[in-house]
Amino acid sequence: MRRFIVVGQQGRTARDFPLDDICGAGGRWDLLARCVQSTLFISHDLRRDSELVLVLLGPPDAPKAIRVSGDLIRNLNPDERSTAALLSRALDEHLPIGGRWIEALPGIHVARRDLEAVLAEYGDGPIVLMDEEGSVDGPDLTSHIRDSDSATFVLGDNMGLTEDQLVLIRDKDPIEVRLGPRSLHVDQCIAIVHNILDRALVFEDD
Amino acid sequence: MRRFIVVGQQGRTARDFPLDDICGAGGRWDLLARCVQSTLFISHDLRRDSELVLVLLGPPDAPKAIRVSGDLIRNLNPDERSTAALLSRALDEHLPIGGRWIEALPGIHVARRDLEAVLAEYGDGPIVLMDEEGSVDGPDLTSHIRDSDSATFVLGDNMGLTEDQLVLIRDKDPIEVRLGPRSLHVDQCIAIVHNILDRALVFEDD
Repeated sequence: MRRFIVVGQQGRTARDFPLDDICGAGGRWDLLARCVQSTLFISHDLRRDSELVLVLLGPPDAPKAIRVSGDLIRNLNPDERSTAALLSRALDEHLPIGGRWIEALPGIHVARRDLEAVLAEYGDGPIVLMDEEGSVDGPDLTSHIRDSDSATFVLGDNMGLTEDQLVLIRDKDPIEVRLGPRSLHVDQCIAIVHNILDRALVFEDD
Repeated sequence: MRRFIVVGQQGRTARDFPLDDICGAGGRWDLLARCVQSTLFISHDLRRDSELVLVLLGPPDAPKAIRVSGDLIRNLNPDERSTAALLSRALDEHLPIGGRWIEALPGIHVARRDLEAVLAEYGDGPIVLMDEEGSVDGPDLTSHIRDSDSATFVLGDNMGLTEDQLVLIRDKDPIEVRLGPRSLHVDQCIAIVHNILDRALVFEDD
């Protein structure tokens, strides 16, 4: 499983924002929707081996995590508006204490979890921190993970990751990877990582 | 200049589609808007050295070409809705015969041009055809173009390129590049190409 964890520092945690303003009132749900697109879509198909975990830290009911699974999701379209509309339905769920995942819709789970709780669940496999200061060069990524089809990547949104969040991630001894000389949008980073891993898979299959 | 030419086979050529349905009624203006995003945006800045030419072939008034220039554009936001709203204002322009570019808004030009006319303008520099069957592997792209900051890339949308369009492009003796084993969305391809070129620039600067 390729898993991408994206921290939405201001991602709205109630379904009370207008779909005409997912960028502003939604706390950058446009960016979060594009992360779904770049995590799951290939041409005329979905990546069944991939999932995205959004850690939403915006008002009014943070933290919440939404997990979108490529092998189970239904009715997903590539545009931002319909993606935000679909995923935000998970924000209506009444969440139990203890952080248990609730299936809101096929392939869409939601839980009362912050970044620390999400990392606790996925922290056993290889963790990759995408960081402009990373010591591993993007294309070398595949020489640092055993199976190029199994890793968890952690990325910040347009606001990046806070110092406290970086401490939590670095506690998992991540591989720290930089993709290039320019700072990119998180959805662009996901597309580039997928391509690096796709190319490595071809060689593994040979 | 890095230039991306994207053919929108069904891209609507009048500003008569609702912004709530840019994907359906707009003839995949969601995808075209994401191409603007991946061509021009880096984190907290624009790529001033890049431009996107959309060749719109959808009803009711095809062909039209819209050129979006990173060094001149104003009021561009990263979300699909506002991007489609901004660019589609160019569709209101009365277009002269002869294919002359009209500046509709700062950094946004529009012309009565089809793919052949667009290629005639930009076909002198190196042309790169992004094609799953291409003979050049993505990362080797930079060994085939003299200056990694100057090339014109031609891409199809979700419907790909027609046989006739491929003939027009191949008449320009393009470099044919494949990015990997999986067929990707056009906006994802643009993000990956930018990353390949960005990384090459670092080495050129060394």
